[in-house]
Amino acid sequence: MVKVVVLGMGMAASHFIVGLERLKNGEIEPYGVPLAGKLPLDISEIEVVGVYDVDVNKVGKSVYDVAKEQIGSEVPIPETLKKLKVMEGVHLRNLDRLGIEATGLEYKKSLSSALDHLVEQWGRMEPDVFINVITTEYATPIGDLKYLEDIIANNRVEEISAGQFYAYAAAIYASKYKPVTFVNLIPTPLANDDAFVKLYTMYDSVLLGDDGATGATPFTADTLEHLKERNRFVEFVVQFNIGGNLDFYALTDPDKNLMKETTKSSIVRDILGYEAPHYIKPTGYLEPLGDKKFVSIHLEYKTFNGLKDSIYVNMRINDSPALAGYMVDLARLGRLVLDEGFKGTIYEINAFYMKKPGPKGSPSISRIVAYQKMINWLETNNILVKTYLD
Amino acid sequence: MVKVVVLGMGMAASHFIVGLERLKNGEIEPYGVPLAGKLPLDISEIEVVGVYDVDVNKVGKSVYDVAKEQIGSEVPIPETLKKLKVMEGVHLRNLDRLGIEATGLEYKKSLSSALDHLVEQWGRMEPDVFINVITTEYATPIGDLKYLEDIIANNRVEEISAGQFYAYAAAIYASKYKPVTFVNLIPTPLANDDAFVKLYTMYDSVLLGDDGATGATPFTADTLEHLKERNRFVEFVVQFNIGGNLDFYALTDPDKNLMKETTKSSIVRDILGYEAPHYIKPTGYLEPLGDKKFVSIHLEYKTFNGLKDSIYVNMRINDSPALAGYMVDLARLGRLVLDEGFKGTIYEINAFYMKKPGPKGSPSISRIVAYQKMINWLETNNILVKTYLD
Amino acid sequence: MVKVVVLGMGMAASHFIVGLERLKNGEIEPYGVPLAGKLPLDISEIEVVGVYDVDVNKVGKSVYDVAKEQIGSEVPIPETLKKLKVMEGVHLRNLDRLGIEATGLEYKKSLSSALDHLVEQWGRMEPDVFINVITTEYATPIGDLKYLEDIIANNRVEEISAGQFYAYAAAIYASKYKPVTFVNLIPTPLANDDAFVKLYTMYDSVLLGDDGATGATPFTADTLEHLKERNRFVEFVVQFNIGGNLDFYALTDPDKNLMKETTKSSIVRDILGYEAPHYIKPTGYLEPLGDKKFVSIHLEYKTFNGLKDSIYVNMRINDSPALAGYMVDLARLGRLVLDEGFKGTIYEINAFYMKKPGPKGSPSISRIVAYQKMINWLETNNILVKTYLD
Amino acid sequence: MVKVVVLGMGMAASHFIVGLERLKNGEIEPYGVPLAGKLPLDISEIEVVGVYDVDVNKVGKSVYDVAKEQIGSEVPIPETLKKLKVMEGVHLRNLDRLGIEATGLEYKKSLSSALDHLVEQWGRMEPDVFINVITTEYATPIGDLKYLEDIIANNRVEEISAGQFYAYAAAIYASKYKPVTFVNLIPTPLANDDAFVKLYTMYDSVLLGDDGATGATPFTADTLEHLKERNRFVEFVVQFNIGGNLDFYALTDPDKNLMKETTKSSIVRDILGYEAPHYIKPTGYLEPLGDKKFVSIHLEYKTFNGLKDSIYVNMRINDSPALAGYMVDLARLGRLVLDEGFKGTIYEINAFYMKKPGPKGSPSISRIVAYQKMINWLETNNILVKTYLD
Repeated sequence: MVKVVVLGMGMAASHFIVGLERLKNGEIEPYGVPLAGKLPLDISEIEVVGVYDVDVNKVGKSVYDVAKEQIGSEVPIPETLKKLKVMEGVHLRNLDRLGIEATGLEYKKSLSSALDHLVEQWGRMEPDVFINVITTEYATPIGDLKYLEDIIANNRVEEISAGQFYAYAAAIYASKYKPVTFVNLIPTPLANDDAFVKLYTMYDSVLLGDDGATGATPFTADTLEHLKERNRFVEFVVQFNIGGNLDFYALTDPDKNLMKETTKSSIVRDILGYEAPHYIKPTGYLEPLGDKKFVSIHLEYKTFNGLKDSIYVNMRINDSPALAGYMVDLARLGRLVLDEGFKGTIYEINAFYMKKPGPKGSPSISRIVAYQKMINWLETNNILVKTYLD
Repeated sequence: MVKVVVLGMGMAASHFIVGLERLKNGEIEPYGVPLAGKLPLDISEIEVVGVYDVDVNKVGKSVYDVAKEQIGSEVPIPETLKKLKVMEGVHLRNLDRLGIEATGLEYKKSLSSALDHLVEQWGRMEPDVFINVITTEYATPIGDLKYLEDIIANNRVEEISAGQFYAYAAAIYASKYKPVTFVNLIPTPLANDDAFVKLYTMYDSVLLGDDGATGATPFTADTLEHLKERNRFVEFVVQFNIGGNLDFYALTDPDKNLMKETTKSSIVRDILGYEAPHYIKPTGYLEPLGDKKFVSIHLEYKTFNGLKDSIYVNMRINDSPALAGYMVDLARLGRLVLDEGFKGTIYEINAFYMKKPGPKGSPSISRIVAYQKMINWLETNNILVKTYLD
Repeated sequence: MVKVVVLGMGMAASHFIVGLERLKNGEIEPYGVPLAGKLPLDISEIEVVGVYDVDVNKVGKSVYDVAKEQIGSEVPIPETLKKLKVMEGVHLRNLDRLGIEATGLEYKKSLSSALDHLVEQWGRMEPDVFINVITTEYATPIGDLKYLEDIIANNRVEEISAGQFYAYAAAIYASKYKPVTFVNLIPTPLANDDAFVKLYTMYDSVLLGDDGATGATPFTADTLEHLKERNRFVEFVVQFNIGGNLDFYALTDPDKNLMKETTKSSIVRDILGYEAPHYIKPTGYLEPLGDKKFVSIHLEYKTFNGLKDSIYVNMRINDSPALAGYMVDLARLGRLVLDEGFKGTIYEINAFYMKKPGPKGSPSISRIVAYQKMINWLETNNILVKTYLD
Repeated sequence: MVKVVVLGMGMAASHFIVGLERLKNGEIEPYGVPLAGKLPLDISEIEVVGVYDVDVNKVGKSVYDVAKEQIGSEVPIPETLKKLKVMEGVHLRNLDRLGIEATGLEYKKSLSSALDHLVEQWGRMEPDVFINVITTEYATPIGDLKYLEDIIANNRVEEISAGQFYAYAAAIYASKYKPVTFVNLIPTPLANDDAFVKLYTMYDSVLLGDDGATGATPFTADTLEHLKERNRFVEFVVQFNIGGNLDFYALTDPDKNLMKETTKSSIVRDILGYEAPHYIKPTGYLEPLGDKKFVSIHLEYKTFNGLKDSIYVNMRINDSPALAGYMVDLARLGRLVLDEGFKGTIYEINAFYMKKPGPKGSPSISRIVAYQKMINWLETNNILVKTYLD
């Protein structure tokens, strides 16, 4: 059994919770869940015990209602989700400039009271794993644990983001109740922030992140690996990205866009070993695309005897379900690594699931190489049902 | 030093020999050569000692003249290639129905005399490695060594293809002079034919093949691996291919096309583990595309929560230089594995470079996985300059 | 009011009849109907009075049942279609080699009895327009009316195709009851066969055809026009096409494929004015693509100052609904031109809707030019509600 | 004979002047020149008499040297261009924020002296046509002639852009010497500014513009027309654009980008008749793409019976040669319309060649429709060699 708190009731959370329920009901196959049947913890063992948001149109409503509004008629929403309510979290500017009316615990309480409030709620829910899928926010590393504690103590709300606050609060919960795994799927540097990794290590807890690696970037990474293995010289890479969900809308805000660009771009040098010129950015927002984003990739490389080849890739891919599928793994892995006694962050897991794998300074590697590494690591640590290595 | 005989003076041979010379001259970088600086045998150590063909417009001419006519002005052809002449090989229907006037040793001699003739020539050239890049031909496995010897002895020219004849002749040369490596880059089943593998083993020689894995199929393979690792369910794969070189023209012949389709299609089941519906075929010939083929790939898969994603890939890629780059590796590996005492065929090498890796019954694996395996194998056997593992 | 007989109850017929009913019910907008609100005959005036097929799994069933099986759950099928039954037509080899069990009037009667049988049925239905959407068949022009009559009279079933037989029968019906328009949406040469045009002229009737121009070919045509108007020199055009419906399956038969290739390829010379090398063919069949075909187009051209540009187009398009939308126009135009006293064939209409516009020897022009011409022609002949010219 | 002054010695000017010379030398065909042989004024009649720029690395150099540096080795540069020198024009912030050191007549003289200086120079050159291809600049319509004169008279350099200044100066030249045609190929509103159109009309001169319609936007326009003619309902249009030339670099400046976005976006409503959601923007700059930009277009539409189709287009196209080819037409048309006595602006010409055709308030129409209209207009006014109408 693994009990999960989901932070941020957006599209990814909706697909995670709905998909999980449909899997339990036998309505669908576990497609898009990388380690579906390979982990010694069945998907049916996952239980979502709490969901948090700050959009006034979500807080207080049932997950059923929110999921229905977000997903529409494309997927049937199980009625059982009417019982799970969206609770109020902290806002800390997360939805600013997005035209959304937000609430937030910090509007009524100091940061330390908000923290106590959450820790107490969680004490009743008994979560093992927290998954952070709030909207992309602007944040810089805290770097120093003492400084982080000061911010909370002195209610300096301008100096901490919602993601950072949740990660801190979950650690405090761990210190009081039991070790947890915090999974950070947004670009906020947490697994890449030494202060946070130290904090989690201190409480025998695990921090995985940062920024879930779904969509075009992992595909580009594997394509670059494919070329590198043939010693083809990449002359440039272009990767456009446009979608119609809130995450893309949020990225029309330059600060948030910058957060994303940073996590995406590091792959080129990390994989190729040289700095091929590239333009890899979330490019635009267009409402009718909905959650199914359009990606266009173009690259050229030098092949043997001085000649040039060209590749063009176009994709139309569901943004949130891809991440939701990873959440099904990460919820289970979060529990399994605790059971095996791990603490701090785990590069072998981050390298496959995250765009900017922690700890700080770690390289992005191609996903296919990362996958082999992770499978080996899981096998070595008895976290695989049986050998799945090819 | 590695001495190489090239069988078939087509586009791939032209790019191999020209590119090699330009590399020696410092005109170009070794892009497109997968293991460029990683092998303990420098590219400059490769020497082409013999080139064979049966097109009457090639036999007797210099490699310079033939390469110039085939490659045109896109790449400068080194003058030093004027000294190397194209020699006459066996035809055995290889160019039938292609509108090319062909000659062939078997037109003037029995098969056994032709064999003696070649072996004697090679005895003077002292090759270590043979690379077979003749035109795609129709051929079925021989299966039994005795049967193969009978064919030669009784001059049953209809029952053996040119590729099979060359592979046999090279083995006889090995028995008389020194062990060799025969590299088969066309679909003719040689490394997949137990009779041939046995024959090479008998003479302490190595047989690598079959069918060089350049172009779209390795890319499709790695894309399928990418999806498999995320447990995405592939609903179908389409892969079109059109080019304007002789190899594409040859594939307008249904028998030859079938040879190619077979080596390409096995990747789907081998990698995914289930038989996703696919259409993966060399599709057409259109002269102005020249050696730069156009590839179009489309696939759809099921992601999490029952939704569907689509991918479209278009490529414009130089066909022959890609293979020529592999030849630079395989010539060196051919020598290095002999030095290390290997014989028979070597799956770890075939799996990366070949569409249909021998021995018979071996699975196609994704190229990225194959690359990791090969690098490990090379390292274990001291055939790498140093560790290049990520 | 216009009464329509539909020949061939395949996907196109299903979408035509279902879409028409849904339009009448106000469920959908008339998207995909080129002249939707522009004709002085409302869409609601179309009534399908008869439907014919020869597949034993369709004959005798209701249009509702057949449409349901063909379209699946993607579109709701109106219950009202339960009353319309599929009647038995002539087979004449139309479904041969497709693995479908076929029936046909000619199995029980001579061709002249079959003809009498149909004409009599139609006499009760009182159709104004026949629309031929049977499966693509192999057929050559008859050329001579006398010869056609002999075939029927002497029951020489091998010498006439189903499309030709229906066109002849409809003309005989016209001679006995009232003028009709026969719309031929398959490659069988009818509007391109002088014998048939003469026959229709004789009975004050109209014959429109041949081969409905939906899908990739009109798009390629307009792209070529775009380039021609800028005097860009097209070096080659590739157009691949793959689908999973019966029509694509039928085209795996080389004879039927040839029929299609011929109507598609003429556009290149006709529009550009020179014979740019091209590969434009229905390429393959892959069942899971269903009725939504995948098209890939690639072309290169010379621009100013000797430089070259490249275009790549990928499409995923519903095959049958596109044709069904045209049928909504052609049913109405069929009646309107009769009312205006036209007879024979009408190039101005064919040029827009057909891949191989009759009469014989007529050029294919770009669709956009054809559209302007047709709108002018309709306006001149008072067949437009009002001026829609830009 | 038509004498031309080129304003702005960038890539487009280089290709125009080089291509023209190569055409005169018989080195190339007039591909990319829409009306190549159709105008009663041969291409060889065009003479470039003056070229202006403000980049300190161009002013004073020969056109040969500048073209060589810009075009590189891709195209041979005729030696004859060594005689033509780049002269100093006005800067007026045109290259600000591009990292280019600029000079400009206004640095040494008042605007009215600069104007006198230019008019006098032109008086010696005797140009018939001015073509404005300076870098995209930020500019708003002047609207009132009196206000424009005040700006010049009072040397209010901040209130006028370089394009506006040149257009004014050319009009003054016309008033003193002879009527001219000013062709504006950048987004600065000139043919869309009533003040300028009035000014040109006053001096029996012609003003064509604004913003040359090459590249992806005309292709998108024709694709939209194609869909509109079939009454397909466009749900959205995405058009990305990335290049590596100065024009793309300039568009990284938000003000300049806005100028371009405005001229591009109007096509959607103008052609479709409704406001389909769209994202059509110059998207990015990446140096190694050079002058050959990458374009990616994606759109979806509703077809018949409520179903949806998808189109993906990728292009790799030479940016400047396309415009240069138009310049060959516009130089000649500029002279021909003067000979026929036209003045003001001419929508029939603008609609084909320009993204934002003047006069103010005119609709963008699809290029194919525009082409037909223009051909008709030219024929009616005897500006065609013979009838080229289809």
